Amino acid sequence: MLQFRNDYSTGAHPRVLEALAATNLEGNVGYGADPHCARCAQLIRDLCQAPQADVQFFVGGTQANLTAIAAFLRPWEGVLCADTGHINGHEAGAAEATGHKLFPVSAGLEGKLTPEALAPVLDRCADPHLVKPTLVYLSDATETGGVYRLAELEALSRFCRERGLLLFLDGARLGSALTAVDNDVTLPDLARLCDAFTIGGTKNGALMGEALVLCAPALQPEFFRVKKQRGAVLAKGWLLGAQFQALLEDGLYWDLANHANTLAAALQAGLAAKGYAMRPVTTTNQIFPLVPRALLEELDQVCTYEVWEELGERTVIRLVTSFSTTQAEVEGLLAALPEQR
Amino acid sequence: MLQFRNDYSTGAHPRVLEALAATNLEGNVGYGADPHCARCAQLIRDLCQAPQADVQFFVGGTQANLTAIAAFLRPWEGVLCADTGHINGHEAGAAEATGHKLFPVSAGLEGKLTPEALAPVLDRCADPHLVKPTLVYLSDATETGGVYRLAELEALSRFCRERGLLLFLDGARLGSALTAVDNDVTLPDLARLCDAFTIGGTKNGALMGEALVLCAPALQPEFFRVKKQRGAVLAKGWLLGAQFQALLEDGLYWDLANHANTLAAALQAGLAAKGYAMRPVTTTNQIFPLVPRALLEELDQVCTYEVWEELGERTVIRLVTSFSTTQAEVEGLLAALPEQR
Amino acid sequence: MLQFRNDYSTGAHPRVLEALAATNLEGNVGYGADPHCARCAQLIRDLCQAPQADVQFFVGGTQANLTAIAAFLRPWEGVLCADTGHINGHEAGAAEATGHKLFPVSAGLEGKLTPEALAPVLDRCADPHLVKPTLVYLSDATETGGVYRLAELEALSRFCRERGLLLFLDGARLGSALTAVDNDVTLPDLARLCDAFTIGGTKNGALMGEALVLCAPALQPEFFRVKKQRGAVLAKGWLLGAQFQALLEDGLYWDLANHANTLAAALQAGLAAKGYAMRPVTTTNQIFPLVPRALLEELDQVCTYEVWEELGERTVIRLVTSFSTTQAEVEGLLAALPEQR
Amino acid sequence: MLQFRNDYSTGAHPRVLEALAATNLEGNVGYGADPHCARCAQLIRDLCQAPQADVQFFVGGTQANLTAIAAFLRPWEGVLCADTGHINGHEAGAAEATGHKLFPVSAGLEGKLTPEALAPVLDRCADPHLVKPTLVYLSDATETGGVYRLAELEALSRFCRERGLLLFLDGARLGSALTAVDNDVTLPDLARLCDAFTIGGTKNGALMGEALVLCAPALQPEFFRVKKQRGAVLAKGWLLGAQFQALLEDGLYWDLANHANTLAAALQAGLAAKGYAMRPVTTTNQIFPLVPRALLEELDQVCTYEVWEELGERTVIRLVTSFSTTQAEVEGLLAALPEQR
Repeated sequence: MLQFRNDYSTGAHPRVLEALAATNLEGNVGYGADPHCARCAQLIRDLCQAPQADVQFFVGGTQANLTAIAAFLRPWEGVLCADTGHINGHEAGAAEATGHKLFPVSAGLEGKLTPEALAPVLDRCADPHLVKPTLVYLSDATETGGVYRLAELEALSRFCRERGLLLFLDGARLGSALTAVDNDVTLPDLARLCDAFTIGGTKNGALMGEALVLCAPALQPEFFRVKKQRGAVLAKGWLLGAQFQALLEDGLYWDLANHANTLAAALQAGLAAKGYAMRPVTTTNQIFPLVPRALLEELDQVCTYEVWEELGERTVIRLVTSFSTTQAEVEGLLAALPEQR
Repeated sequence: MLQFRNDYSTGAHPRVLEALAATNLEGNVGYGADPHCARCAQLIRDLCQAPQADVQFFVGGTQANLTAIAAFLRPWEGVLCADTGHINGHEAGAAEATGHKLFPVSAGLEGKLTPEALAPVLDRCADPHLVKPTLVYLSDATETGGVYRLAELEALSRFCRERGLLLFLDGARLGSALTAVDNDVTLPDLARLCDAFTIGGTKNGALMGEALVLCAPALQPEFFRVKKQRGAVLAKGWLLGAQFQALLEDGLYWDLANHANTLAAALQAGLAAKGYAMRPVTTTNQIFPLVPRALLEELDQVCTYEVWEELGERTVIRLVTSFSTTQAEVEGLLAALPEQR
Repeated sequence: MLQFRNDYSTGAHPRVLEALAATNLEGNVGYGADPHCARCAQLIRDLCQAPQADVQFFVGGTQANLTAIAAFLRPWEGVLCADTGHINGHEAGAAEATGHKLFPVSAGLEGKLTPEALAPVLDRCADPHLVKPTLVYLSDATETGGVYRLAELEALSRFCRERGLLLFLDGARLGSALTAVDNDVTLPDLARLCDAFTIGGTKNGALMGEALVLCAPALQPEFFRVKKQRGAVLAKGWLLGAQFQALLEDGLYWDLANHANTLAAALQAGLAAKGYAMRPVTTTNQIFPLVPRALLEELDQVCTYEVWEELGERTVIRLVTSFSTTQAEVEGLLAALPEQR
Repeated sequence: MLQFRNDYSTGAHPRVLEALAATNLEGNVGYGADPHCARCAQLIRDLCQAPQADVQFFVGGTQANLTAIAAFLRPWEGVLCADTGHINGHEAGAAEATGHKLFPVSAGLEGKLTPEALAPVLDRCADPHLVKPTLVYLSDATETGGVYRLAELEALSRFCRERGLLLFLDGARLGSALTAVDNDVTLPDLARLCDAFTIGGTKNGALMGEALVLCAPALQPEFFRVKKQRGAVLAKGWLLGAQFQALLEDGLYWDLANHANTLAAALQAGLAAKGYAMRPVTTTNQIFPLVPRALLEELDQVCTYEVWEELGERTVIRLVTSFSTTQAEVEGLLAALPEQR
């Protein structure tokens, strides 16, 4: 069975495993206060050209998102997000369970937010009988494979600063976004434009892990207490620092993301050549071909995938590549699928 | 520097690492729905003689505790615990952050709860202007190294059932408890007497992981949704199942705990022979010698440890052994410490 | 200035004030355990033909709604409501602050829910990575003046029972709904079809107060503790029981609502005769005429009202009548408004 | 039956009722934005000599306390309070339901906090694995009838400012405290020393109502949204402003409190003369005589009271006077009780 269901169905890149193994018996202080985390945090600050940033490692993305929302917001504040945003549709109400309302905004096929889409919600919520939206949550890459252009992020950042909003970017697939062919955003751009963002490890070569970069100094004090309160402090914290160190110190992180993107692009091109439409076309490691419903049963024998949306006679499915996807798997899937004419 | 600060300062037992590595590229479905978790859950049910139990794996103890409390209780319900209980003093208000009041009960040097200590709180809370305590949280081994005897657990369990209370046992150091020389409790006993309990991996040979055993069927439905909501579902869930499988399938878990206990006992006996008092004397992998305050500076050059309590001229310190502690470390520490006469 | 802004800008009906005054120095036990509340609860049970119901009095609607949601739901559960529903748009995130996600459903101009609109959300949320919607919140009259027909409520109730959903009806304007010319629903119908509903006093002749009828026995145990926890137990609880007694024992409640409806209908008819369109046409005490924007400045000199929605060159405004609105006020407003031709 | 159970078993002082009636049909804007609330807020600012203060009216004390705690604190912060504090023992976990841990501190018979009692908790909580206490909650009068002296409040205030703590004073019985014979504290003192405090109406002549004085400007922005979110905004908000206006504008508030104190003192003195001990002796409107247990049955025929504590063969009971208690009631109770020799 070919694996295209998601980018977290295999473990870690061998170099990450080696780095982990090297720490195994060295003896480290717990809770992330170890030298691995300290060195890796400094490396991330350097890569981001953000000497003032604090870096906090998390095991998973929902944990990072809910801790950030709990820590950043006051009780009367809420979150603007895409209707397709992960926090709105895939985290079992984790944000609301911290007491905060989400304001999902229609974000189109690519799942991208714009100042134009956000402004009317803000205006409406000037009424003090409503929750006050004060944080914008966006994902890059988006949940539907979209990539923010630098000009788009700059416009959002400017809008947020003018309107007193925090800008938080969920980078669960940040590697894929920043290595996409149409990307023009860098880590220093993110550190400059966002108040906080994550660098996702789980979906790009780590066993597990998200690095949360707290760019805004105001968000840093006592953050650790909230993290602890949410059960998000890993006892053997160095497991996260060591993995990110292995991924980021020699650029392995970008190589792996580029690998996944390249194979996704090949798969997308191959499917298009066979007559499959995409919804939408992407440049990252998730692709969304339309498949005749009758083909699904056959497809079930060939590969894993996710059903995304029913669209008349056809189904949008999601196929995802990862650091461990092989050229042979892509070719195997293309070979197995019939032409659509 | 000799490591006696805690039992989570090294990684995993080599056999656990091997088991993890073996899963690395096999391709598994996410979120704990994989065969490793399924097989390990069955193994735990078998070991507990509890075919009706559900088993849920967590990365850490605070996460397991807060998810359980959030899932088990209604808003008007609270938790009876020892004043020394981990949820009361070491989890940064994680329980209260789920909206629930704790009722800490004075639990003495050994940190053990009794029906006699719980009953008056229950009686007082019959008043509907108060929170209703409906869950008893206890730890075995306790936070101060104590071990529950079977008769004690049976009395607590009987009391809980008579008074309509859930019994939840935090087994972060369950290995150490169940292999203690004065222990007479078994896994099937726990499954029979508790509504839920955890089997701790982090402090006994795993990189990370706690297995939550939901013995009471009423606690099982929709538990996964709460786990997800609390950010406690690991994307690559098999990492937990595979580790517990390696620990439990051949009894490695008990061997490691026994190893830690044996070395702790040797250290405690050696210290006692040198004239150090204990507060309290324990049979598990944590020991609590009283050290003249003036000795601490010297001790800082020899080993890591935790300051537990100031007691007049002396300080109670905590020394902890683990699966990776060596006989040489114990001897080294004993050799380095002066006699107290 | 003519008062049409809302139905809570005057105090209580004189008979309600008299009833309050009569209790002033009689000496009553606190927290709603007094004979006034007991008698009034029995009266409501009788009127509802629901001998099994529990009745709980609240000072206000947001308080009643948030307490009910907190008490009824488990942490993983959420609320289906109209996008125009009061809990979604006018309670400052009170529901989310209890930890629960709302699922707003597009409910059209009349703000009414249907099984057809609810079913797709339920189906999507079968995925355990999502919140599980388990309560349907609807308002009668709706926030835009709509009235549920008996057949509509029966269909919703049947749907809820088939799908395991609680049905909760916010009756802040229940008097207006049940006395509307197109209404065919009775209190016993509500008690039979809903799991819980409120009878609103604040907007129909009381100083303050909502009576929450807990029809489903499963919702009743320990409800008082949650009410206390949410700060919703009034110390001098008899103030609520006595007011509802005065309103309900001789049908004053229905007379007052009918009065408000009649005047609203006269105002609506008068405005229509003058050429104003309605959006939508209603049969309750709220009406929604479209007014040329240029007219608003003039209107500001004549009466109080609320801006509801901008619609091209025109503005939908809301005019509300109450128990204390007079025929003269309606005529005064009609006389002051120019014809629209 | 003589009423000594509490100070909220009768309604309002006649002048308060008259003031309410006068507003009945005048037509007011809702939610506390009316002229009555504005005038009364200004009056309170004047009485407190605190022109910068914001005043928010609440229906009840639990509501005011929970809203303040929710609004003032960040998620990682907790509350220092007396073990006898109302929020700890009588509000059904309202504070914890907002997510915040309480740190109850042993406060002796009089229920008073001191810097000496608070400091050790603060020191222990420097550890970031714990909740950080950042608000001190105290009551004046205390729950056991005690009164803070100015020097005590000044010491607490100085301590709070040195240690970065907010000082919040629950004045549910503030009238009784500030008119006690041993009181030397004024409203301007409170406004100067506290960050926020309440002036209780419910227990001193109002139908219901607590006025929360937000002295610290940093606590004021967006407070209304939290109040709304907690269901604590009264639709007909002027009902609260008008009552407090009637109580405070001519000093009626202090007259009523003084009346209650005087009668309580007479009752206490009379009981002492008959040989009853007090635990403790108080100067406010609550007294705590020790009564032989055998006498309780007889007492039940004479008056209402609360059982406070069992003490060997005797029971501490609580007797409370209020604005509506009469000299005859006090004499009646004294006449009915046998001498204790």
